[in-house]
Amino acid sequence: MRKNALCGHVAGCGRTEANLIRAKEMGIIDSFDTDPARACEDADLIVFATPVGTFKELANRIGPLLKQGAIVMDVGSVKGGLVYEMEDLMPSGVHFIGCHPIAGSNRSGIDTAGADLFRGALCIITETSKTDSSAFQRVVGVWRTFGSVIRTMEPGEHDRIYALVSHMPHLIAYALVNSVDDIDGSSLGFAGQGFKDSTRIASSSPEMWRDIVMLNRENLLKFIDAFKGNIDALCRHLRAGDASALEKEFRRAKKLREALKDNIGND
Amino acid sequence: MRKNALCGHVAGCGRTEANLIRAKEMGIIDSFDTDPARACEDADLIVFATPVGTFKELANRIGPLLKQGAIVMDVGSVKGGLVYEMEDLMPSGVHFIGCHPIAGSNRSGIDTAGADLFRGALCIITETSKTDSSAFQRVVGVWRTFGSVIRTMEPGEHDRIYALVSHMPHLIAYALVNSVDDIDGSSLGFAGQGFKDSTRIASSSPEMWRDIVMLNRENLLKFIDAFKGNIDALCRHLRAGDASALEKEFRRAKKLREALKDNIGND
Repeated sequence: MRKNALCGHVAGCGRTEANLIRAKEMGIIDSFDTDPARACEDADLIVFATPVGTFKELANRIGPLLKQGAIVMDVGSVKGGLVYEMEDLMPSGVHFIGCHPIAGSNRSGIDTAGADLFRGALCIITETSKTDSSAFQRVVGVWRTFGSVIRTMEPGEHDRIYALVSHMPHLIAYALVNSVDDIDGSSLGFAGQGFKDSTRIASSSPEMWRDIVMLNRENLLKFIDAFKGNIDALCRHLRAGDASALEKEFRRAKKLREALKDNIGND
Repeated sequence: MRKNALCGHVAGCGRTEANLIRAKEMGIIDSFDTDPARACEDADLIVFATPVGTFKELANRIGPLLKQGAIVMDVGSVKGGLVYEMEDLMPSGVHFIGCHPIAGSNRSGIDTAGADLFRGALCIITETSKTDSSAFQRVVGVWRTFGSVIRTMEPGEHDRIYALVSHMPHLIAYALVNSVDDIDGSSLGFAGQGFKDSTRIASSSPEMWRDIVMLNRENLLKFIDAFKGNIDALCRHLRAGDASALEKEFRRAKKLREALKDNIGND
C-alpha cells in the first residue's frame, strides 16, 4: 500500500515485538503496538492477516475503538460462516469485507514480504446481503491497485471451491509426508523434484492451516471422502491388474492438469 | 553422451519416425531405425528409455542381435523383479545394469532433452548377485561423467523407497485432480500455486506411469493403506474438533518437509 501511495500512516500489530521492530526498520510500518485495540484506533482501514481462528476474538477486542466509517478487511483463506460472523461483530458504521488473495507460499514472516506479491494474482472478494457497496468498492480499488485479478462471490461458495483446490491438497500433503515417515523416514533422502513439488505445501504454517481446516471442516470431510473413493478405485485397478483402467484415469487427470497452465493466477 | 564424448555412433529407435527425424536433425542421433533389433545391432551400449512395461518384449526382440560384451542399461523408474527378469533375458556375455536417474519432469519428448539434465541429480544403480562388476563400473563411469550423484542398492530396496517417495505421490496426485473434477471441475480455474505444484506430477505420461505403478503394485498397495490411515486420522481430528492434534500432525510434516531442502537432488 505504501509503494502504491494508498496510505498515510501504517500502524503494525503483532505478537512478537522483534518482528514489529524489523518491519519498522524496513520502512513497511510507521509505528507499532502489540495491543490490537490501540494499533487500530483511528484507522481508516484495518487488515486482518492473522490465523483465521483469531479473527473473532480480535474483532471483539478492537471493536470499541474503531471509528465510524472504518473498513475491516482480511486476507484469510476461509470465508464461509466467518464472514457473516465478522459482519455481525462490527460496530455500527464499520464495514467488514472478506478478501482472499490467491498468492503467497509456504514461506511466512516479514522478510518474505514483497510489494509485487499480488500482481497478476487472483483475489477473491466476498459479497453478502449485508455488504456495504461503498466499502466494497474501496476494497476492490485497493486490490486493483496491487494488480490483482478480482473475482467476487458469496462466502460459502468461496469455501466450497477452496476446500477443493487448496484445503484438501494441504491436508493430503501433510498426510503424505507423515506416511512416508511412518513407513521409512530414511527414504525421504531419495526424494526427487516430483516429491518436493507435491509436498511443498506441507511446510506451510501449521498454526495457520490448523485454523483453516477447522473452519472449513464440513466441506473438507465431504470432499476427502470423494478423494478416498478415487484412491480406492485406483487400488482396485492395481489389484485387478487393469492397466488400461489405470491409464484412462491418469489420462483424465493429465488433461485436466494441463488445462490449468494458462489460467489466471501466479503460475 | 555425445557432449561428453562418451560415444561414437548413436543409433536411435522409437515408434514414431517423425521424432527420430527430429532427433537426427538436432544432432542427438546419427542414424535411426524403427526396428529395435536392427537399431541395437553391433552396439556397445543399449539404453532402454521406453515405458517399463515394454522392457521384456524389447529384450526378447533385440537379444539375438546383441554382440558379446554389450551392456544393456535402462532409465526406468521401477527396478525390483524387472531387473532380475532382464538379467535372465540377456544372452550369454551381455550384461544388464538397472539405472534410475532421479531427474526429468512431467515433460517428455525430444524437444525437452538437455545435456545437463543429470548434473547434480541422484542416480540409483542397482546391483544383484549376478551383476558383472566390469559392466557395472563402466555404467557408473557414464553417470559420473554426466555429473550424477550415484547410490547403489538392491533392486527390491529401490522399489520400496520409490514406491514411497515417487510412485505413491503420483497416484495421489492423479486421484486428487480427478476428485476435484468429480466434485466441481469449474473450481480448477480458481487454483493457485499450491494446487499447481502439488499436482504437477499428474501431468506425467499416463503410459509411462501405468507401467510403473503396475510393476510396483505390491509395495504401492501396502503404502497407500498407510497413507489412508493418516488421512483417516486427520479426518477424526477434524470431526472431533481437535485443533491441537491437527496442528501437531502439521508440525511433524512441516519439520520433515523442511529437512528435505538440502538433500542431494535437483531441487
